Amino acid sequence: MALNGRVSLNMSIRGLNKSPTLFINEQSRTLQSQGRRVYRLGLGQSPFPVPPPVVDSLKEHAHEKDYLPVEGLRELRGAVAHFHRQKDGLNVQPQHTLIGPGSKELMFLLQLVFYGEIYIPTPCWVSYVPQARIIGRSVQTFPTSFDTRWRTLPEQLDETFESEQDTYRPRLLVLNYPSNPDGGTFKPEELQAIAEVARKYEVIVLSDEIYGQLHYKGEHISIARYYPERTIISSGLSKWCGAGGWRLGTFSFPPNLSYLLEAISAVASETYTSVSAPIQYAAVKAFQGGLRIERYLWHIRRILDALATCLTEILTQAGIRCHKPDGAFYLFPDFTPLAEKLSKRGITDSADLCHHLLNDTGVAILPGADFQRPPSELTARLAFVNFNGAEALAASETIPLDQPLPASFVTKWCGNTVEAVERLADWTSG
Amino acid sequence: MALNGRVSLNMSIRGLNKSPTLFINEQSRTLQSQGRRVYRLGLGQSPFPVPPPVVDSLKEHAHEKDYLPVEGLRELRGAVAHFHRQKDGLNVQPQHTLIGPGSKELMFLLQLVFYGEIYIPTPCWVSYVPQARIIGRSVQTFPTSFDTRWRTLPEQLDETFESEQDTYRPRLLVLNYPSNPDGGTFKPEELQAIAEVARKYEVIVLSDEIYGQLHYKGEHISIARYYPERTIISSGLSKWCGAGGWRLGTFSFPPNLSYLLEAISAVASETYTSVSAPIQYAAVKAFQGGLRIERYLWHIRRILDALATCLTEILTQAGIRCHKPDGAFYLFPDFTPLAEKLSKRGITDSADLCHHLLNDTGVAILPGADFQRPPSELTARLAFVNFNGAEALAASETIPLDQPLPASFVTKWCGNTVEAVERLADWTSG
Repeated sequence: MALNGRVSLNMSIRGLNKSPTLFINEQSRTLQSQGRRVYRLGLGQSPFPVPPPVVDSLKEHAHEKDYLPVEGLRELRGAVAHFHRQKDGLNVQPQHTLIGPGSKELMFLLQLVFYGEIYIPTPCWVSYVPQARIIGRSVQTFPTSFDTRWRTLPEQLDETFESEQDTYRPRLLVLNYPSNPDGGTFKPEELQAIAEVARKYEVIVLSDEIYGQLHYKGEHISIARYYPERTIISSGLSKWCGAGGWRLGTFSFPPNLSYLLEAISAVASETYTSVSAPIQYAAVKAFQGGLRIERYLWHIRRILDALATCLTEILTQAGIRCHKPDGAFYLFPDFTPLAEKLSKRGITDSADLCHHLLNDTGVAILPGADFQRPPSELTARLAFVNFNGAEALAASETIPLDQPLPASFVTKWCGNTVEAVERLADWTSG
Repeated sequence: MALNGRVSLNMSIRGLNKSPTLFINEQSRTLQSQGRRVYRLGLGQSPFPVPPPVVDSLKEHAHEKDYLPVEGLRELRGAVAHFHRQKDGLNVQPQHTLIGPGSKELMFLLQLVFYGEIYIPTPCWVSYVPQARIIGRSVQTFPTSFDTRWRTLPEQLDETFESEQDTYRPRLLVLNYPSNPDGGTFKPEELQAIAEVARKYEVIVLSDEIYGQLHYKGEHISIARYYPERTIISSGLSKWCGAGGWRLGTFSFPPNLSYLLEAISAVASETYTSVSAPIQYAAVKAFQGGLRIERYLWHIRRILDALATCLTEILTQAGIRCHKPDGAFYLFPDFTPLAEKLSKRGITDSADLCHHLLNDTGVAILPGADFQRPPSELTARLAFVNFNGAEALAASETIPLDQPLPASFVTKWCGNTVEAVERLADWTSG
């Protein structure tokens, strides 16, 4: 915010800006309302509709008006536990689940209640660090690199913890996979190795698996398989269920971290109280799953996979470094190979890059700096979601799931997004 | 929470308990599930259904899935501004309104961002003070008394501010009327006098008017009439619209406090993001109002007024001091005249009083201590909402609004609550 007058704001809040993803969404809307053509690859919102059985369930429960228990509706907590048992092969109990108005809010409350050091590998999701700032906490970020597919290395973790000479320092490590901003995930052996380091130092892991069900091959594996005793799993309706605007997230705790669940609930009872009742009733249907929802998932995975392949190729051919994602709907291209060329156009950091790109082409993406990368690194996040998901889904549904999508599918049904990335590629070579 | 093991929790959170109102709700449920008859006068939840046009609107918008702007859906902000113009005669602009997941959350964020001293007259709503504790802020509470109908006196405010010898100290004064926990409200001349003191010291007023539309005579007046320049009005769907579980609250700011709206929005963008989209679309209908909603309001006001009159009389006849409320659904009886008698039964504070009462009679009410009164003061809050609001509303709708309800109405349709208060009265005399 721009502060031009006398204000009474706490120091941790003065000059705090809106979350970049939400800000670019609003900025894109404004440009559009001025008649500009904007390709909205800024906000990571699922383009697909909420599955019809879930929408129907919301209609059926529209009259529900009672304040629900702080931790969540009993049936919903059961359905979330069932979901993790069935999808992740994890022994999650209903009483160890927690429902919140988005997993973002739950993460904020976890940061608020947890006493200890918080570790976040970068590039990371935009909100972790600002959340810490709001409550005046410090967090330790540490970089990963393009060469290791932006993945956290176990030896890197071990070195960091070891160098602190404080073995049982209370620690919370945040992992996110499939990842926002790069769509990559861990291999099982990588998770196993990280689990061993975490066990050695008794580190609590916040495993943000909100994109787990958007693993293109349906092969998402949670670190809780290897480190059940101290892993908190974060999930929610926003991504795989296309219901970001509904605001419902979930945490699942191991039994020995119940005190964190209770502490977050105590704060929740003094702040948001509980999640909207009709939404919670509808979410039961989503987490229970079933054939219709399972088919929906396979269709959207197939579409996203095809689109990711196509876009990665366009970028790579333009000389931009980019790993093909394993899931979710993000690419994290690295423009470093084009640094000299861009520098001649006055572009020397990721903020410049995105600013010029939006101005010149109408393509809205977010600078790597927003994901805690060094400002001068020429990286950016691209959310490939600017297409009509309902139409694309309907088109995919006419093609049997055991057949691949034809080559023309993404140009036909996700044309806007393909066009945006082509414009981006042209722009860099221009 | 009971902490029996080693935990990593921040000091401001250790030992924090769930909000008493939510806790007693869950405790009541547990007792009921054990087969005990419980009269649930603990949680202040409207017994009435959400008006049908509003429920229908939620059904119509069940498919809405987009993340909405942090500040709220444009149409809803317009409807909230319209609501305050029409209901309160205030010139509120849409861009100065803010939508949150309950006004409780918005108040928390206001406490989080505001730099300055916070003043709260007691008895006060249960959450203001714990919210301050969570973020490590101190608040100044100051007592009101039974003799002045639990109202804040302007001269008391003036003395407090004057004695600080710091005239322009940044200050936020929280007022709540019709009030939780006592149902009383201010007379226009009282508001005017408070406004004068506030103006003298440039105090920001958070005017919690969530029960405004439940003024029995429909004569709610906002202090913003007399102090528009620094009054933030808090409202929402929870009380007058019977939709507590939906979680939607509103703040309306004067133009010169826009910086607080922006700061809260910035924090919101990193925490709850925005309020559930389908709920916001449905809320447009509620705030737009119209004949059906207006009739609904007059019926529920008439029922609550009749019930308040009946219950106040039962309590008064039992020798308990109690003011008849002007609105909302609370009574704040003072058992001090019976202190000697209760002391002989081992009851010497408000927690004892409520604990014994629940055990002996199954009547659940909350101790005055939860509302920041001295623990030894024998006061308590009674939420007179334990009846079937849908049936009571339907019965009222058969009686023209220009006629009074017959004397038998409340015993017939709110019998549970009347019985509970009779049991309470019997118990004190026993």
